[in-house]
Amino acid sequence: MTKEFFKVTDLNKVLEYRRIFSKVTAEDVDISETAGRILAEDIISDTDLPDFMRATMDGYAISASSSYGATEANPGWLTIKGAISMGEIPSFRIGPGESARIATGGMLPQGADSVMMIEHTETVGANNYSPQHIEIYKSIAPGQHVIEIGEDFRKGEMLLCCGQRIRAQETGLLAAFGKQNVLVYQKPEIAIISTGDEVVPIDHTPGFGKIRDINTYTLAGLVKQAGGIPHFYGIIPDVYDAMKQTCRQAVEASDMVLISGGSSVGVRDLTIDVLASLPNAEILVHGISISPGKPTILAKVGNCAVWGLPGHVVSAMVVFSVVVKPFIEHISGLAVSREVKIPAILTRNIASVHGRTDYVRVRLSEKNGKLYAEPILGKSGLINTMVKADGLVEIDMNTEGLYQGAEVWVIPV
Amino acid sequence: MTKEFFKVTDLNKVLEYRRIFSKVTAEDVDISETAGRILAEDIISDTDLPDFMRATMDGYAISASSSYGATEANPGWLTIKGAISMGEIPSFRIGPGESARIATGGMLPQGADSVMMIEHTETVGANNYSPQHIEIYKSIAPGQHVIEIGEDFRKGEMLLCCGQRIRAQETGLLAAFGKQNVLVYQKPEIAIISTGDEVVPIDHTPGFGKIRDINTYTLAGLVKQAGGIPHFYGIIPDVYDAMKQTCRQAVEASDMVLISGGSSVGVRDLTIDVLASLPNAEILVHGISISPGKPTILAKVGNCAVWGLPGHVVSAMVVFSVVVKPFIEHISGLAVSREVKIPAILTRNIASVHGRTDYVRVRLSEKNGKLYAEPILGKSGLINTMVKADGLVEIDMNTEGLYQGAEVWVIPV
Repeated sequence: MTKEFFKVTDLNKVLEYRRIFSKVTAEDVDISETAGRILAEDIISDTDLPDFMRATMDGYAISASSSYGATEANPGWLTIKGAISMGEIPSFRIGPGESARIATGGMLPQGADSVMMIEHTETVGANNYSPQHIEIYKSIAPGQHVIEIGEDFRKGEMLLCCGQRIRAQETGLLAAFGKQNVLVYQKPEIAIISTGDEVVPIDHTPGFGKIRDINTYTLAGLVKQAGGIPHFYGIIPDVYDAMKQTCRQAVEASDMVLISGGSSVGVRDLTIDVLASLPNAEILVHGISISPGKPTILAKVGNCAVWGLPGHVVSAMVVFSVVVKPFIEHISGLAVSREVKIPAILTRNIASVHGRTDYVRVRLSEKNGKLYAEPILGKSGLINTMVKADGLVEIDMNTEGLYQGAEVWVIPV
Repeated sequence: MTKEFFKVTDLNKVLEYRRIFSKVTAEDVDISETAGRILAEDIISDTDLPDFMRATMDGYAISASSSYGATEANPGWLTIKGAISMGEIPSFRIGPGESARIATGGMLPQGADSVMMIEHTETVGANNYSPQHIEIYKSIAPGQHVIEIGEDFRKGEMLLCCGQRIRAQETGLLAAFGKQNVLVYQKPEIAIISTGDEVVPIDHTPGFGKIRDINTYTLAGLVKQAGGIPHFYGIIPDVYDAMKQTCRQAVEASDMVLISGGSSVGVRDLTIDVLASLPNAEILVHGISISPGKPTILAKVGNCAVWGLPGHVVSAMVVFSVVVKPFIEHISGLAVSREVKIPAILTRNIASVHGRTDYVRVRLSEKNGKLYAEPILGKSGLINTMVKADGLVEIDMNTEGLYQGAEVWVIPV
């Protein structure tokens, strides 16, 4: 009667197909433009950081041994040998019983190994403007209130790895080592094609029976969040030749193609036929054991992953989050993801079907010091359920549901 | 001897100062450019969504009452009155005992109130290509496998609120209602000034006693993450006139100014003096009861918040995350934040000082189905501690530390 999903593929099996797609190429980028990008080279330290002993407090650079035994009742007495200007190499040496005025960030003179905080000293001597001595009220240990040579990073140390995502602190680290430019992976170019004779452009007023093109804009937003560059190919009619021509153009110009719409069996069959007819095409997946999102197609056309996503916007979003995003991350070179799922407590029972992985939309809220995940029920054609949602909870294919009070992991959406 | 932080301000008090700064203006933006932006208008539904009854499965549109009593053993028998093309208004009506072939997304004809899934039917009659009747094996209820008129959104309903952040699904929702452009708040323009005679540009090789300008790049990354546009004002020497001139230019051109560096008391005093001398300036905060990050200055210069941030990069990042970011969000118009802190379990005791709010860097890891936060110890001058960190744990000013096993909230960094 109709072709159906005889061979639905397990989610993990689908995710394994990532590896057959190669990464995008790398480009040299100024570090002020690297926020969120994926590093395409290892960065090795070419120097100790810092390469001199720095004060972390305002006070007096001393040899700690000069302070031993000093207390409020029995203060120590040190000569002020001079003051250290910021950014300069001290011109003198500190001996026992000597000290030098130093500010936070300043370089300790030879002979000094610690900083006595200004709060624990009192100047004495000639006058307040040019004191010659200090009383110290505390004993400190070597290394106190200083950053030692190489304490942040040692010369030759691996600073950052190829495949790591660059956050603000990684950019700061690159700056510390003088890397004005670094190699990062290019952002993958991702084509978005909408299908469906019932879909109209968003600036049209849809008549009865028609609906505006929600999926193109939703998917474009998701692509950006995942670090890709979306390219709009518009709405193509459910016609073999038109679909084939657009798909071929998209495949040639892109690192990945997302075809959305066509949840009806006829259109899915059409999509499969079109994809199979492209040069160097192989249909890898025709149905995934997840819900929502089962009617998903994955083809490899050359080195381009081409997805046939469900037409229902919620299904398309779920498939994107759980399946497409890991593929985008893979071709973007991401090797070390620090992204975490959020633990929360389920507020009600949810039923599920054995043998498929279910994704339930949830809204997060804090109450009495705990984080709760409230399931949002509703059909996968309703975008309001995703607008209310903060994340998705996965229900494993080997369970038949989750109970109220269960500890769950929430995938942010 | 030196001016000190006599009147350190409580964190909550500092955060309250947000309200005295006005929001940036709004701009009209194409919805394909709205990812992550803050909506500057309420969006009201001008129609029911959908405005016709849609099929959510492939099958036959029927009146549910025609199916009552149908089972595998005792199938129902319905006439096929026709097929409904996608995107078209059905030209006929369904009566009792009648059905119409329909695909997912199609418009139900008059008289139909549900869809019988194709899996629960069998065609009978003339031939397979143009069957005239179906047997149905199941009884369904009205509304089954359809989305009813207004089930997603009702006409007149508030869809999205002014002050809400636009994610992919909100963009999709705007598309559904034909909003090609929406009003969003502009991204605030944020000036970044580095100070310190010991700081050199990152493309210079710092001699002993000097260090590259880590903070400018770290702060620029944080500004971008927070939705602002960073502007680099370079490194200015610790000299009154130079600092004043640059600050004045930055204030005139920006919505906010971040001055970083100058953790030494002398430079802090200089910063305060410079800020106080600007037209319409008021020093609001001179020290915050947090650690790290105490030596922070906040001035209001006209409508511009000007921050004197600590020189240590970790301190600057902490102050940014807990204090500056909420100010940026406020002037960006964010009114409804759905950002969540992540609950985790502390892996070791951490001591803290009563009377100030402490922020401890932590690294997250999953083990046996639980999320753990491992404190990263190290001086606030060491950027490696932030590179290792996934987040910050706040220790309230009224506690003196946290025990291993404590449930904590992690602020992602």
